[in-house]
Amino acid sequence: MYSFNNDYSEGAHPRILQTLTDTNLEQNNGYSQDRHTAHAADLIRAEAACPGADIHILVGGTQTNSAVIAAALRPHQAVIAATTGHINVHETGAVEASGHKVLTRPAADGKLTPALIREVLNTHTDEHMVQPKMVYISDSTEIGTLYTKAELEALSHCCRQNGLWLFLDGARLGAALTSPANDLTMADIAALTDVFYIGGTKNGALFGEALVIVNDALKLDFRYLIKQRGAMLAKGWLLGIQFEELFRDRLFYDLAAHANAMAARLRDALAERGYEFAYPPQTNQLFPIFTDERIEKLSRDFLFMPDKRIDANRQSVRLVTSWATTEAGVEDFIRALDMK
Amino acid sequence: MYSFNNDYSEGAHPRILQTLTDTNLEQNNGYSQDRHTAHAADLIRAEAACPGADIHILVGGTQTNSAVIAAALRPHQAVIAATTGHINVHETGAVEASGHKVLTRPAADGKLTPALIREVLNTHTDEHMVQPKMVYISDSTEIGTLYTKAELEALSHCCRQNGLWLFLDGARLGAALTSPANDLTMADIAALTDVFYIGGTKNGALFGEALVIVNDALKLDFRYLIKQRGAMLAKGWLLGIQFEELFRDRLFYDLAAHANAMAARLRDALAERGYEFAYPPQTNQLFPIFTDERIEKLSRDFLFMPDKRIDANRQSVRLVTSWATTEAGVEDFIRALDMK
Amino acid sequence: MYSFNNDYSEGAHPRILQTLTDTNLEQNNGYSQDRHTAHAADLIRAEAACPGADIHILVGGTQTNSAVIAAALRPHQAVIAATTGHINVHETGAVEASGHKVLTRPAADGKLTPALIREVLNTHTDEHMVQPKMVYISDSTEIGTLYTKAELEALSHCCRQNGLWLFLDGARLGAALTSPANDLTMADIAALTDVFYIGGTKNGALFGEALVIVNDALKLDFRYLIKQRGAMLAKGWLLGIQFEELFRDRLFYDLAAHANAMAARLRDALAERGYEFAYPPQTNQLFPIFTDERIEKLSRDFLFMPDKRIDANRQSVRLVTSWATTEAGVEDFIRALDMK
Amino acid sequence: MYSFNNDYSEGAHPRILQTLTDTNLEQNNGYSQDRHTAHAADLIRAEAACPGADIHILVGGTQTNSAVIAAALRPHQAVIAATTGHINVHETGAVEASGHKVLTRPAADGKLTPALIREVLNTHTDEHMVQPKMVYISDSTEIGTLYTKAELEALSHCCRQNGLWLFLDGARLGAALTSPANDLTMADIAALTDVFYIGGTKNGALFGEALVIVNDALKLDFRYLIKQRGAMLAKGWLLGIQFEELFRDRLFYDLAAHANAMAARLRDALAERGYEFAYPPQTNQLFPIFTDERIEKLSRDFLFMPDKRIDANRQSVRLVTSWATTEAGVEDFIRALDMK
Repeated sequence: MYSFNNDYSEGAHPRILQTLTDTNLEQNNGYSQDRHTAHAADLIRAEAACPGADIHILVGGTQTNSAVIAAALRPHQAVIAATTGHINVHETGAVEASGHKVLTRPAADGKLTPALIREVLNTHTDEHMVQPKMVYISDSTEIGTLYTKAELEALSHCCRQNGLWLFLDGARLGAALTSPANDLTMADIAALTDVFYIGGTKNGALFGEALVIVNDALKLDFRYLIKQRGAMLAKGWLLGIQFEELFRDRLFYDLAAHANAMAARLRDALAERGYEFAYPPQTNQLFPIFTDERIEKLSRDFLFMPDKRIDANRQSVRLVTSWATTEAGVEDFIRALDMK
Repeated sequence: MYSFNNDYSEGAHPRILQTLTDTNLEQNNGYSQDRHTAHAADLIRAEAACPGADIHILVGGTQTNSAVIAAALRPHQAVIAATTGHINVHETGAVEASGHKVLTRPAADGKLTPALIREVLNTHTDEHMVQPKMVYISDSTEIGTLYTKAELEALSHCCRQNGLWLFLDGARLGAALTSPANDLTMADIAALTDVFYIGGTKNGALFGEALVIVNDALKLDFRYLIKQRGAMLAKGWLLGIQFEELFRDRLFYDLAAHANAMAARLRDALAERGYEFAYPPQTNQLFPIFTDERIEKLSRDFLFMPDKRIDANRQSVRLVTSWATTEAGVEDFIRALDMK
Repeated sequence: MYSFNNDYSEGAHPRILQTLTDTNLEQNNGYSQDRHTAHAADLIRAEAACPGADIHILVGGTQTNSAVIAAALRPHQAVIAATTGHINVHETGAVEASGHKVLTRPAADGKLTPALIREVLNTHTDEHMVQPKMVYISDSTEIGTLYTKAELEALSHCCRQNGLWLFLDGARLGAALTSPANDLTMADIAALTDVFYIGGTKNGALFGEALVIVNDALKLDFRYLIKQRGAMLAKGWLLGIQFEELFRDRLFYDLAAHANAMAARLRDALAERGYEFAYPPQTNQLFPIFTDERIEKLSRDFLFMPDKRIDANRQSVRLVTSWATTEAGVEDFIRALDMK
Repeated sequence: MYSFNNDYSEGAHPRILQTLTDTNLEQNNGYSQDRHTAHAADLIRAEAACPGADIHILVGGTQTNSAVIAAALRPHQAVIAATTGHINVHETGAVEASGHKVLTRPAADGKLTPALIREVLNTHTDEHMVQPKMVYISDSTEIGTLYTKAELEALSHCCRQNGLWLFLDGARLGAALTSPANDLTMADIAALTDVFYIGGTKNGALFGEALVIVNDALKLDFRYLIKQRGAMLAKGWLLGIQFEELFRDRLFYDLAAHANAMAARLRDALAERGYEFAYPPQTNQLFPIFTDERIEKLSRDFLFMPDKRIDANRQSVRLVTSWATTEAGVEDFIRALDMK
């Protein structure tokens, strides 16, 4: 069985593992107060062209989202997200567990717009309702789509006009920034958001999400929030070393580009065969529509997740490629498409 | 500089790193639903002689404590701990952040007793006060001491009589179980508590705490709690592999025994020289009392944490040894004790 | 200015105020442990034909909703509500503030159905998502509509089949039960739900919501939850006395019937003049659609709340009648409809 | 039986009830946005010589404490209180339920001091621990003692130097300010604290605590917090009317002075007979020490609460007088002291 289940089915890029091995017996300060983490932070600040940013590297995305939102909001404040937003669906109510409502709007291609945000603002106007204070977006989105620079600028402008923080979940930022359809840089993102993070887990690290706090107003005491949420890794240098390796050169981008290239190969093969997609295929997540029969056949040799039923005999499924996806795996899948 | 700061200053035992490297390109199911984690759980159930236990391996201690307590308690219920308890002092209010009060009592040698528990019960008697429902203890404790089997039996009996869950934080359980002063086994702990965990972070793993839920009443839906607290590692097999390695043979105990042996060597050398200890030196955490002058001298070559001021010119400090502490490091420290 | 803003613009029915005055210097036990509250509870149990129910009288609806939900749910569990549900919109995130997500579905006439509930259940299937565990409905609803007995039976059946608690917010239960369109009794409601409450604030009391916990599983330690949420009134007998008075005879129903009769008079007058309603006019809340010009004219002499824009020159507004609404007020409004 | 159980065993001063009756059929805006509340706020601002203060009148003390603390603190911040503080003991963990730890110190006579505060600050120094940010005191305290002006000035100075908010719970502020031992005015309290409240429940109102937010930093969006905690009374003018009446003239002080005078009469009679007190008898709460035999005899005709055991055959009890305590009740009790 070859798995297209997700982009976190394998371990880490070998260079990362090698560095972890090489540094294994170093004695380091705990809790991310070590020299590797400091160096990784410098590399990220340089990459984001944001010398004043605070960088914190956390283990996973749910804890990062929850800590950022808890740090930024007062008890009566809420975060706006697309209905498909990860915080709304797939984090078991972590945001609500820290006391905040997620205000959602159905969003085309999983992307919020200024119009959707204004809709929320216009219907939350007094103290009998929660107060919208933050906007949460993902790039690439949960359904594999991308924000363009123009779209992000419009969101950023809308947020600043309305006193809303703009928070970008970049669990799959590598896939976004290396997509041929992308016109954003990491520096653009730093300039247009208040806080964002750079996903390692889904891009070749064992784990790790590097949070970049751009807006000074969100920096104060953030380490307290990390610790309180149980998200402060004792051997924090393990996070630092991984991001040092990802940003020492272009490894972060190279790994994501590979995942996208593997997805593009699949996408082209699917399109050639006339398959449609539930959402625009722009990054390493594809949502092709298959007949139930085809799904049954493909499932004999490949792992992938169901998405949704399209009609009586067709469903969309999710195929995800990763930094470790092999060409052989992709070619086998393509052959299986033609299997009787 | 050689560090006795804590038992999580180095990476992982080489066997663990090697296995992580060997399995790196395996495709595994995410979120701890992989074969390594299943195997590790089997090994732990066998070691604890507790075939019906549920095992969950989480990344760190604070998130484990917070998830267990949140899973077990209703909103008005509280957990009893020693004043020195980790959840009371060093988790930035994580228990309170999930809504629960920690009811504390100063406890000799950091150990709760049935008498202290009854004191709390007797003063919390109606709905104007929180309702004590869980007892939290650590073994070894935050100050390096141990529970004897008789003491744990007495606590267990008291908890069962009073409808209280007994939860044992075993972040340093290896050091406890391999101390010469110990008369408990892991099976005893499983028999006497409702839930406990086995620390990997402080005993040779990169990270990881293996939670053992013994009491059926605490098992339901626990994975929801893990996920909600952001404590569900995407590449969960990394946890499974580490605990497979620790419990494949006696590695878990061997590593802790080494840490204790290094501490015993320090303890003996200190005692020979007439130094006193702030708390009984029983495991890999020692709290010798030094003059300020001696501390100043030792600090030139060694890292360690201050503990508390004893009198005008003496303080206790904390020395911690680990699975990776070298004999050379220990001998250097002992020599430094005699340094003019 | 005459106000149709809501049904809590005046004080209490004179009989209630008189009894509060008559008993003013009685010494009573605090915190609802007094004889008046005990007597009121007996009267309510009799009215609901539910001798085993636990009765708690709280000051307001938001605190009652929040306490019930917090008492019933574990941290990962969620409550299902119509998008228009009071807990979803108008309680400033009180449910989320106690850690729980509100899962919503747009519902025709503000009423949940088994089909909508199944939709939520079918999309919340594992530990990456919250777990639906309670269904919240209001009768009468936030938009003045009613559940029929058949509808409530279907909901009750669906909830029991799926292990969901059914919670009915009866802030306007009087208006519901005395509507000509209603075929439910309080005993039906007790038989078909797990917990519900009987609104006093909007039906002639100074304040007070009488909670009826029918299901034993929801009874344990409920007074702790009341106290923790700051909802335990020191002089709790003030609540008991008001509900004694409301249920000593038929006062509770008589007051609601008056409010409904005043609304029916308005409704008939509006319908005669060809006005449409945004939602079916069944109880004491009416949502007629007026031209902007008519609204401007009516606003000179009457207070009422805007509802929503219907088209370029029409809006719906909300008119609410109460136990205290005068015939003169109603007739003046009707005359104003014909005003040039 | 005559009750000295507490100061909230009777209803309201007749003038308050009469005004509630007189205004009963007025139509008022809901949620405390009415003219009575506005007028009461003006009277309180004048009394506190604090024209810029925000005034909010809530129903009860626990909800007021919880709302103030939740409004003021970020998730990792904690409030310092005496071990005997109401928020620490008698609010069923309401502060923790909103996510915050209460850091306590045993305090002589129930009163915090700068030295105790510094002790807490000195032991909470980094992100592994909660961050103290607010100081909570009560005047009069939970054991009937008073802060002097010098003591409150010292606390205020300490708080300002250390960036801590000072919050004074004045549930029994009337008793404090009218005690012969008092040298503070309400204006002093406004000048020396950041936020405080004036208790109505325990001083002749049916219910109601008037919160005075002096520090601008604590004012923003406070009504959202009130609503979210279920503490926004629909018929909010009921609160406004009561405080209008209390502060229209000197009624607030007169009622408290009466309670204190009744307590003083009891205290003198007790002292004459050689009875000791567990805490200094300064306001309307007395804690005399009786033999078990005397308690048994007094309990035949009087209600009062136990306090604590002093020795093998003596206990302290709590006697509370109120605005409604009668001279006859007091004299009967004194006679009972001499009963064989």
